Amino acid sequence: MKNSKEKIDMKTLTITGLALCFSLSLSAQEQTNTAAVQKIRQEGLENSKVMDIAFQITDVAGPRLSNSPGLKRAQDWAVRQFTSWGLKNVHLEAWGQFGKGWQIDKYYAATTLPYYHAMIGAPKAWTPGTKGAIKSEVILIKADTITDLLPYKGKLAGKIVMFDQVTIQPLQNSYKADAVRYTDAELAKMAEAAPQPQGQRPRAGAANNMMAQMMKMREIRAAMASFMLEEQVGLLLSYGRGNHGTFFTSNGASYALDAKPVAPELEISAEDYLHILRLLRAGEKVEVEADIRTSFYDQDPQGYNVIAEIPGTDRKLKDEVVMIGGHYDSWHSATGATDNAAGAAVMMETMRILKAINFKPKRTIRVALWSSEEQGLHGSRGYVAKHFGDPKTMVLTKDHKKISAYYNLDNGTGAIRGIYLQGNTAAGPIFQEWLTPFQDLGAKTVTAGNTGGTDHQAFDAVGIPGFQFIQDPMDYNTRTHHTNQDTFDRLAEEDLKRAATIVASFVYHTSEREAQIPRKELPKTPEVPKQ
Amino acid sequence: MKNSKEKIDMKTLTITGLALCFSLSLSAQEQTNTAAVQKIRQEGLENSKVMDIAFQITDVAGPRLSNSPGLKRAQDWAVRQFTSWGLKNVHLEAWGQFGKGWQIDKYYAATTLPYYHAMIGAPKAWTPGTKGAIKSEVILIKADTITDLLPYKGKLAGKIVMFDQVTIQPLQNSYKADAVRYTDAELAKMAEAAPQPQGQRPRAGAANNMMAQMMKMREIRAAMASFMLEEQVGLLLSYGRGNHGTFFTSNGASYALDAKPVAPELEISAEDYLHILRLLRAGEKVEVEADIRTSFYDQDPQGYNVIAEIPGTDRKLKDEVVMIGGHYDSWHSATGATDNAAGAAVMMETMRILKAINFKPKRTIRVALWSSEEQGLHGSRGYVAKHFGDPKTMVLTKDHKKISAYYNLDNGTGAIRGIYLQGNTAAGPIFQEWLTPFQDLGAKTVTAGNTGGTDHQAFDAVGIPGFQFIQDPMDYNTRTHHTNQDTFDRLAEEDLKRAATIVASFVYHTSEREAQIPRKELPKTPEVPKQ
Repeated sequence: MKNSKEKIDMKTLTITGLALCFSLSLSAQEQTNTAAVQKIRQEGLENSKVMDIAFQITDVAGPRLSNSPGLKRAQDWAVRQFTSWGLKNVHLEAWGQFGKGWQIDKYYAATTLPYYHAMIGAPKAWTPGTKGAIKSEVILIKADTITDLLPYKGKLAGKIVMFDQVTIQPLQNSYKADAVRYTDAELAKMAEAAPQPQGQRPRAGAANNMMAQMMKMREIRAAMASFMLEEQVGLLLSYGRGNHGTFFTSNGASYALDAKPVAPELEISAEDYLHILRLLRAGEKVEVEADIRTSFYDQDPQGYNVIAEIPGTDRKLKDEVVMIGGHYDSWHSATGATDNAAGAAVMMETMRILKAINFKPKRTIRVALWSSEEQGLHGSRGYVAKHFGDPKTMVLTKDHKKISAYYNLDNGTGAIRGIYLQGNTAAGPIFQEWLTPFQDLGAKTVTAGNTGGTDHQAFDAVGIPGFQFIQDPMDYNTRTHHTNQDTFDRLAEEDLKRAATIVASFVYHTSEREAQIPRKELPKTPEVPKQ
Repeated sequence: MKNSKEKIDMKTLTITGLALCFSLSLSAQEQTNTAAVQKIRQEGLENSKVMDIAFQITDVAGPRLSNSPGLKRAQDWAVRQFTSWGLKNVHLEAWGQFGKGWQIDKYYAATTLPYYHAMIGAPKAWTPGTKGAIKSEVILIKADTITDLLPYKGKLAGKIVMFDQVTIQPLQNSYKADAVRYTDAELAKMAEAAPQPQGQRPRAGAANNMMAQMMKMREIRAAMASFMLEEQVGLLLSYGRGNHGTFFTSNGASYALDAKPVAPELEISAEDYLHILRLLRAGEKVEVEADIRTSFYDQDPQGYNVIAEIPGTDRKLKDEVVMIGGHYDSWHSATGATDNAAGAAVMMETMRILKAINFKPKRTIRVALWSSEEQGLHGSRGYVAKHFGDPKTMVLTKDHKKISAYYNLDNGTGAIRGIYLQGNTAAGPIFQEWLTPFQDLGAKTVTAGNTGGTDHQAFDAVGIPGFQFIQDPMDYNTRTHHTNQDTFDRLAEEDLKRAATIVASFVYHTSEREAQIPRKELPKTPEVPKQ
């Protein structure tokens, strides 16, 4: 759907890539299948559907908060789409209990004093709406502790309130570009990274301290939330970090079925928040009107992943599996284009490419579109626990030996520049060889370093080779990741086409490779910290 | 109000500045008064009130569209403020007939199909609201000519519509910083600029062609507007150029008392517009609900400027005047912080500084906060016509000889880096000398070049030395100029403090200088283009 301004001559690229491939692959131990790469490049770069797929996931399906109607729409569409491409074993698979779904049904808020100004914002996820249309003077609460709240007792019913947080700083002009790509120097540095050990647990003393601090903060927050609810606060206005109308969103309550109720809470843009805060601090009267409606969905508290396969055809290897995936859920204030419709669209497009070139893989190729990643990698962790093993006990299933590797994509819309080995150095030379035909697309870096925060960790945690690709950062951290501006507009067409092409080639070779991808030593059963 | 992160040691700066001043001013023909500069720097840099002033103009008064209640609030406050500082002859002065005021009383719009999404937007200035809360499927109109509209006849009553404009391009990632400052090289190039002639009129043939084209486009637009009105369109959705929740605003109708009525028109952010456009182009159904209310004000169609003075004290020169100013009016979708509360606040602060150091000027110093600059420099042009002369006939008043110079500030929040001579090369050496004590603040460039688009042009047009300062661009063109994000947050405290200090020094020296600022040759009476 989106016209690309980065459009370049694909034929030139294809030929350059193949030339490189021929010249390098013959001398390497690991083999790349040049003919297959050529077909994949042709389909992925010249007949891409990745933007159409992304359009369906974002614009058509909408925000995809875990267990929301939007996620369900997107999941149902993916099932239909995978089926129409001829994939097998297409289904929604429950991974365990998630909790409540939630969505915004109406959002309206504006200052009416000292003058009218409609505000940019969104209710925090899993918070209730206002009691109809409300209007009140805004009360500025100064409270660091629960005791500080006592003077406000009996005065907040139906009122719109905000906290006077000293930590909130004035906005600054940005003299740096929002979007960046990795430089060659940065990639070279990544390539030299030493393998990192498995995530080490903090020492018991430090852990206890940190835990105690966190527990205390959580306690204060919980007590304040209870106070707001008991006092029947009409609406709590919260600071939405960001700039120029972009703000970062989050949840304001738990999605658990038995979650404690909370007062309505609205995240407004930094500009709108600071506007009110400056006026209140200066003693000016501010009045706000708001009308917020939200819905909860608890009829089916199960969480689901979308699963689909291209079945293996090799007599000996067809029971083995290569998995790819990316999370499909998003936050609620936009359509989660870079987090992570981008990754999900690339993985769907990867499957489409492999079907389009009529690939009959030796091993089974399975794609998973995870849910509830944003709440703690729940979808992938649930799936891994069910299919492969429990990271807590390291009790493994028989399928644990049958999976060669898992590849994940979830760092926005930026081009693939290489891959994180996640400490699995034995996989390094293999991936280096497989990247050779894609040097012309800027993908060449293999780093022994780790990256975290997404679903490959669920696999890595039970000793399955789980990888995430290196991607150009673009404006992920400044503008899109969890913001109200994470829309289809942010998607870089050329980058996504190339990503699907590269992933398809990796999957191809993983499927066809005689041996599985080498494994790291199995993680040890974690120690229970001593008290 | 705003804490500065750019805060630097003011004492160091003051001393450095003075040292420079001593060493350079002695060798120059034009003199700077070192003691006065020291006092001005002390007051302007160490006791600044410029952010408090800007807070009142923006956060407290609000959007200041010409003849709106917001502008009136800000004007009344300025009158009180000038009076409290002991300025004389403080008054609102009518400059002629403007037309209708207008303001937003309610703005709400959201998609309800394919799912709920509240939109970032604002009604176009001087457009009516919707007929209460409305909801309709969005109709995509494909029409380049009036004839193309005919198939829609009878189908648009109460409907929400948008045009399928092929000129609208997908958004792009921004690999350049939003905010920039001038580099030394850029400033050096400006310093070398040759004086530019007075604005030349296009040759008669070219003018006629351009005019004919413009007239045709205007005709089509007018006919389409009439069609929308006749068909009783519920709401027209327009594309708000911009990115990431920032959008640029404008007017959707004339402010004239006898302006033709138009249909309600809403400018929405590029993201929200493109979202709907992509869905409609793909054949998806989109439904929007909206509730927009606006008010018109026509009881007093006069436009007003705020005027205040520090009277001259020299027997021979007190009837002469040095003027400073900046426009006070803004667009409607934000509080016009950089366009142009910044310039107005600096000019107010300049007057405060001069009063605070107890300056008794030889010539009278007069400040003007113009209105209706945004609609064509009306406030300053009206003032100049009344006080100094008519640029059409070049019939001049007796006061034309009594004004030494006019200094203007209206290029955002960026630091003053020098001054545009507007072709007045004789003033060059004078200003170069006057900038000497501010080299440490980065203000050193004098360019013979012109700059346009604001109120100094009203003075220049009748041959009065009228100047605008060179300012660092910051994010004026990317984020703030006429946008919904032109808020107090964008103001750079240190830059504004320095600007007021430099302007105060210029005004001081213009007032005390034996002779007036030299003048260019008087403009010739413009030729009437031959038909």
